[in-house]
Amino acid sequence: MPKPTPLSGFPELLPAQRYVEQQVVTTLARTFELHGFANIETRAVEPLDQLLRKGDTSKEVYVLRRLQAATDGSAADKDKGIGLHFDLTVPFARYVLENAGRLEFPFRRYQIQKVWRGERPQEGRFREFTQADIDIVGRDTLPFHHDVEVARVMLEALGRLASPDSIGLPGFRLQVNNRKLIQGFYAGLGLTDDGIDEVMRLVDKLDKLSVAQVRELLLTEAGVSEEQADKALALATIRATDDSFVDTVRDLGVKHELLEEGLAELAELVRACAPLATDRTRIEADLSIARGLDYYTGTVFETRLDGFESLGSICSGGRYDALASDGRTTYPGVGISLGLSRVLVPLLQRGELTSDRSVPSVVLVAVADEDSRAAADAVATALRARDIPCEVAPSAAKFGKQIRHAERRGIPYVWFPDQGEVKDIRSGNQVAADPATWQPPTQDLRPQVVTNSERQSS
Amino acid sequence: MPKPTPLSGFPELLPAQRYVEQQVVTTLARTFELHGFANIETRAVEPLDQLLRKGDTSKEVYVLRRLQAATDGSAADKDKGIGLHFDLTVPFARYVLENAGRLEFPFRRYQIQKVWRGERPQEGRFREFTQADIDIVGRDTLPFHHDVEVARVMLEALGRLASPDSIGLPGFRLQVNNRKLIQGFYAGLGLTDDGIDEVMRLVDKLDKLSVAQVRELLLTEAGVSEEQADKALALATIRATDDSFVDTVRDLGVKHELLEEGLAELAELVRACAPLATDRTRIEADLSIARGLDYYTGTVFETRLDGFESLGSICSGGRYDALASDGRTTYPGVGISLGLSRVLVPLLQRGELTSDRSVPSVVLVAVADEDSRAAADAVATALRARDIPCEVAPSAAKFGKQIRHAERRGIPYVWFPDQGEVKDIRSGNQVAADPATWQPPTQDLRPQVVTNSERQSS
Repeated sequence: MPKPTPLSGFPELLPAQRYVEQQVVTTLARTFELHGFANIETRAVEPLDQLLRKGDTSKEVYVLRRLQAATDGSAADKDKGIGLHFDLTVPFARYVLENAGRLEFPFRRYQIQKVWRGERPQEGRFREFTQADIDIVGRDTLPFHHDVEVARVMLEALGRLASPDSIGLPGFRLQVNNRKLIQGFYAGLGLTDDGIDEVMRLVDKLDKLSVAQVRELLLTEAGVSEEQADKALALATIRATDDSFVDTVRDLGVKHELLEEGLAELAELVRACAPLATDRTRIEADLSIARGLDYYTGTVFETRLDGFESLGSICSGGRYDALASDGRTTYPGVGISLGLSRVLVPLLQRGELTSDRSVPSVVLVAVADEDSRAAADAVATALRARDIPCEVAPSAAKFGKQIRHAERRGIPYVWFPDQGEVKDIRSGNQVAADPATWQPPTQDLRPQVVTNSERQSS
Repeated sequence: MPKPTPLSGFPELLPAQRYVEQQVVTTLARTFELHGFANIETRAVEPLDQLLRKGDTSKEVYVLRRLQAATDGSAADKDKGIGLHFDLTVPFARYVLENAGRLEFPFRRYQIQKVWRGERPQEGRFREFTQADIDIVGRDTLPFHHDVEVARVMLEALGRLASPDSIGLPGFRLQVNNRKLIQGFYAGLGLTDDGIDEVMRLVDKLDKLSVAQVRELLLTEAGVSEEQADKALALATIRATDDSFVDTVRDLGVKHELLEEGLAELAELVRACAPLATDRTRIEADLSIARGLDYYTGTVFETRLDGFESLGSICSGGRYDALASDGRTTYPGVGISLGLSRVLVPLLQRGELTSDRSVPSVVLVAVADEDSRAAADAVATALRARDIPCEVAPSAAKFGKQIRHAERRGIPYVWFPDQGEVKDIRSGNQVAADPATWQPPTQDLRPQVVTNSERQSS
């Protein structure tokens, strides 16, 4: 077999990089569990008719076919109708309906899984990637305070990821808005329902087009008046890190019941989240955020990664008044989804982030000759009994070679059973030690995530 | 959307069941890491030509096609050649070749991921399931002591899974053999290479056919003599939990250099593993084990789950002299793969195993009225700061209703912020408590895995 080459859009990690990813997953899971979110996983496949309910994503779906089905007509139909999930929301909505009788509502779950999209690979866009979602779903009703809750939980999780004591990711900016606020404002301007959708779609282009260009489109494509266009654009430029945006909106002189409802919700959200803000995790009301064609009905979230704004939103979500429905019962939900690979893979690939060893082992137990391998195994067993990860040298090579074996993997200690001594190969310090009692410093016990700036300063 | 129904062969778990699976994964990962195995994940897809190298599995592969490719001929070819991996060995061999220059050998990794097979679903056979693999791979050479190592590591991992203090799975029986032993024995009987393969294939049917039936096939299909058939069958009936099988084999009077090599390796393996055996994890030399058509060249492993023998082997593997090769360099490997879903899903589905709550929360913080929600949130924040998972009641219902909310999820404690008291709702015991210092008993801090027999006795 010739040397294989990577498949574009299917990133893979080396062991030291994968360790960083594992730490991110562990940090997220721990935060979500502290807030009572239970973990679930859903199967990788869904019936195609479920995956294609949102027309605009249909082109991204990977369809599955059993190889056998190609030559065996009878089997072809049976599997024709399944594809790989492209997000975790569609499978979760299906899981809720399928298991409604066995779940307790409001049901709070987190889900960290791979998803697949057959789109053209580009920076931060993969064909296989991991998402981390939290959602709270109610039966019939779901109080607004759960919108606040998912924002706070994700903000706390992002705060841990950005903390230099933990993973040390760049900072995050959580941007929040409310569809009721936008829709109420547009309705107050006198737009019809169709007009509202059209204006929302065009204003959403502000991240790609200039204000003048969008204004032109509003006048020509949406057919709104100059005053309506200017007010819609004025709304979309409002930003605030506190509830001062309420007055700014009111100063635009538009009145509508739904607008008031949206203003009240968004103000409550910002006030409740502001105390969690740090210099690395900020929250901002950004009245341009609408989440395009998604079916959100209230709160909407987007998130920017500092220094990686070109990646777009790396953590998005919002409130659905009907996350799922079986015709009789409706399940409203609110959730937020972190694009874990989208954040992490570029940082790992550029070498901004890695870990300081490629194996979990703290200790390499040296082997003087093959006859004394059992003695080396006994040392390793004694260390493992006290939760100290270690490995035994694969061959009785010269000790210098065994030390280099440890060095190349980043293993900090080499144990010499014959001498009953352990050497810190970073300092060269070698001391007598008993495998039943020796303990490495806590920071050596597990691999450490290191950022590029930490490496350069050390 | 009508109520969805499960997809046959794609099992999903409820939150309390998923918790058990998470604990199993954590237990395995911890054990593997203690032995210095690094974690990796490989992408879900491989080029079809790689997946189809073993002709006999081709029918099980799910091929991927982008939905768009159906209507867009130009895009069709590009994605035609990929399918979902059906095991973790083929992707691992490819990963080793692709990254050989960036890995340190011997390279030890564990991998816990889903795999997919388009086969007909039946008991213990799924279309999507999780495997947990450990492998050690060398460059050019790999000493035999690594065969012993992977057996010992997996035995230790299975021992933890079977321990009543941990997951409490049924017991395991690890069955080991050696291809050199079988091939050397058959060669010593005077069989040709083709004859050896044919006899091995037929003797492997002993788990489905009677001794008399296999003997008949050996005489008619393989065309061996009655003496050769009888000796081959005699070898396949040998079992031992220590190295006494060496003398039993020698008593059959067959001599061959490869047989001696196999006997020595298997004896060393059994002697090194025997000390790890317990009443729930046994090791046995079973000279009938050959692993059928797989390309093993030395040690082979199979594993039976007590009381679930009909599942077949739930943990298998062995030594490959050429796990991977790029033509210039050969990478020998030894590994073992646990069918995690195959073991766990039947136990979960039959209710033999579950966990005692469906959420991570230890405490439900009650809410007297919506105006005091902030006070309840403050209690929850104080508890979480000390790593105590908790949730706040979703509505200010009557306290009786809030207690039932906790009860239905298995949450053991309800906190009343107004009274500054916490109630153990199992005993009804209610005491004054400070969220800055209160600590639940350790066994309440995380959900507990419970077996059916534990439930019945409590």
